[in-house]
Amino acid sequence: MTESTKIQLERLKRGAHEVLVEADFEKKIASGKVLRVKAGFDPTAPDLHLGHTVLINKLKQFQDAGHHILFLIGDFTGMIGDPTGKSATRPPLTKEDVAKNAESYTQQVFKILDSEKTEVVFNSTWMSKFNAADLIQLAAKHTVARMLERDDFNKRYTGGKPIAIHEFLYPLIQGYDSVALKADIELGGTDQKFNLLVGRQLQEVYDQPPQVVMTMPILEGLDGVQKMSKSLGNYIGINEPPNDMFGKLMSISDVLMWRYFELLSFRELGEIDGWKKACDEGKENPKNVKVKLALEIVERFHSLVAAEKAREAFDSRFKHGQVPDDIKSIVIKNGSSLLIANALKEAGLTVSASESYRMMKQGAVKIDGKKVDDKKASLDIGKAYLAQVGKRKFSKITIA
Amino acid sequence: MTESTKIQLERLKRGAHEVLVEADFEKKIASGKVLRVKAGFDPTAPDLHLGHTVLINKLKQFQDAGHHILFLIGDFTGMIGDPTGKSATRPPLTKEDVAKNAESYTQQVFKILDSEKTEVVFNSTWMSKFNAADLIQLAAKHTVARMLERDDFNKRYTGGKPIAIHEFLYPLIQGYDSVALKADIELGGTDQKFNLLVGRQLQEVYDQPPQVVMTMPILEGLDGVQKMSKSLGNYIGINEPPNDMFGKLMSISDVLMWRYFELLSFRELGEIDGWKKACDEGKENPKNVKVKLALEIVERFHSLVAAEKAREAFDSRFKHGQVPDDIKSIVIKNGSSLLIANALKEAGLTVSASESYRMMKQGAVKIDGKKVDDKKASLDIGKAYLAQVGKRKFSKITIA
Repeated sequence: MTESTKIQLERLKRGAHEVLVEADFEKKIASGKVLRVKAGFDPTAPDLHLGHTVLINKLKQFQDAGHHILFLIGDFTGMIGDPTGKSATRPPLTKEDVAKNAESYTQQVFKILDSEKTEVVFNSTWMSKFNAADLIQLAAKHTVARMLERDDFNKRYTGGKPIAIHEFLYPLIQGYDSVALKADIELGGTDQKFNLLVGRQLQEVYDQPPQVVMTMPILEGLDGVQKMSKSLGNYIGINEPPNDMFGKLMSISDVLMWRYFELLSFRELGEIDGWKKACDEGKENPKNVKVKLALEIVERFHSLVAAEKAREAFDSRFKHGQVPDDIKSIVIKNGSSLLIANALKEAGLTVSASESYRMMKQGAVKIDGKKVDDKKASLDIGKAYLAQVGKRKFSKITIA
Repeated sequence: MTESTKIQLERLKRGAHEVLVEADFEKKIASGKVLRVKAGFDPTAPDLHLGHTVLINKLKQFQDAGHHILFLIGDFTGMIGDPTGKSATRPPLTKEDVAKNAESYTQQVFKILDSEKTEVVFNSTWMSKFNAADLIQLAAKHTVARMLERDDFNKRYTGGKPIAIHEFLYPLIQGYDSVALKADIELGGTDQKFNLLVGRQLQEVYDQPPQVVMTMPILEGLDGVQKMSKSLGNYIGINEPPNDMFGKLMSISDVLMWRYFELLSFRELGEIDGWKKACDEGKENPKNVKVKLALEIVERFHSLVAAEKAREAFDSRFKHGQVPDDIKSIVIKNGSSLLIANALKEAGLTVSASESYRMMKQGAVKIDGKKVDDKKASLDIGKAYLAQVGKRKFSKITIA
């Protein structure tokens, strides 16, 4: 193996949870060929957040190494919707919906990937040509027992919860996409491992070299516990304004900061390790390191100038009120916006909602440095706020 | 319920193993409407034997009662063949194969059913219009757990034997045929019960009144133990010459005779019961009753004249050699034709193959009244032979 292959391998494996099969991966990279790197995306949720970018960043690294990115939009099943008819929230998408979502999706993705070098593909292209007999042929390539080995299927089957038969067909279709695309590598979240391996297996059945499967970890949200998700409200959208993005990143815990560095930063691992060591030894203030992370991310999705401005706004906001450095961050899980009076109580800044109201009346409550005396005012879900009660009590509050 | 409805119900339920749901059946019959009665047949095996006719006779009874018969040929999956590619014996059928087989099939079936009143349908008519999305929609209508309740699937799953996923789709397609045909009743063998119930369930999903399921027993072959089957050699084909048919029917045991009366005869049950009682009380010789059965069946597939001639030929063959009345019948399971020398030994007419050869050399061996001295002569599978060694030793031998 050449030195440059070694470096490329190391870079590409960074942050990956698993590479299957590693020997195949090394061989493919060492071959020097332009590899076809596939990743599949749902056509329904075009609002990207940092959680999505873990995978997209990895695609970017493959792209930068000269490989061919296949950005697959799984619109075929999306256009079917929920065929059990049980889920009102999954209506079938029209061709127009798909086109619109894809447009919005790629617009966001091309903030990271090079649009010139990315092939956007829709699996309806080949799947809509499949007839029932073709699908039967495909279904014959896999067994019920192997499908029931998938963790969630297994739990539902043994737990007596229904699995509709078409759910066994979806992983096969996803796997067949790899056959149709002749993928060399497929990337996905750790929760996709089973489906990615179906693709590997189907390629062998269809006499193709099996793809390498690379799974990426699922990024935790601002709370540091649950996965980042729009519906949980603990996310940072890549279209958010610089100030919001910067503020949210500054609100995360120090532990979570190192995780974000690992999965979101493009900086060299050595550099990050150095900072961590310095923080651990008390030679560096974690807040300063967090600023570097926030700057890098805001710059990526906006610009260097926007990032600097966001930092200044953040600093002045905090300095203006002589805000101490070590403010406690709290994420309140509420599922929707929350009355400020209640938020203050939850954050421990007051002992009750009525005390909150009293303090608001006295002009002693500030949100992001501005006095609030409207009893009905509330904090929006998914944003980080600096809350202040009186002169001394501060808290960074995020409603999730 | 009118008296005529009662009589119709009784007649239609005769010999049926199970009717699901009986109350629905009574309601449908009592409605006086022309019912759509479906039965599905495989497009691969056009050689009908008496085993198949149990079901076809029942269709005939529905037809005689004025109902509409849907003779369904399941050619859609037949044209797919074995998609796992494991079975060399199930090559995909072409359109031409299907047409040829169907022609041969219906030619035979119309010896029982009235061709004018029978609608022959092919499920490829609607299934070939199904695309992958339609099949996914269909697959969403049933669960994995319910499919695994099917006896053979359950045994294979728990026994660690693979079930390919497309096998879960076939019962759904068969069930969908009932939807496409708007069947009121479906008939099938007891081994088809699960699949027929899938049809019932799918009709409900598709907002149709669920079909009544009627299962018919599986007819035992000449050996009285295993199901009648061409591959087991224990069958009577409906295209067999009158003499063979008559001879085979005369070779069955008395116990099996009553079973055949129940499932194959069109005679009134009261009449049959009377004969049985007479035989049980020693007032009637079962052989005479067996002649009535053989005559009825031969007449059905040939003619009254042919049946009478077959009886005469049978009688003269036996009388000519002064064959005793109570000859032992034996079925030798061999799976292929058997050397006469070995057959005689198996039947207990000789003690060894070498004794058989000796007797043959002496001119003491007769098969169907004719001397046999060729050491290499053998008995064909699936036929009944009268074997004689010396003056006294007789046996009716069937090779299965």
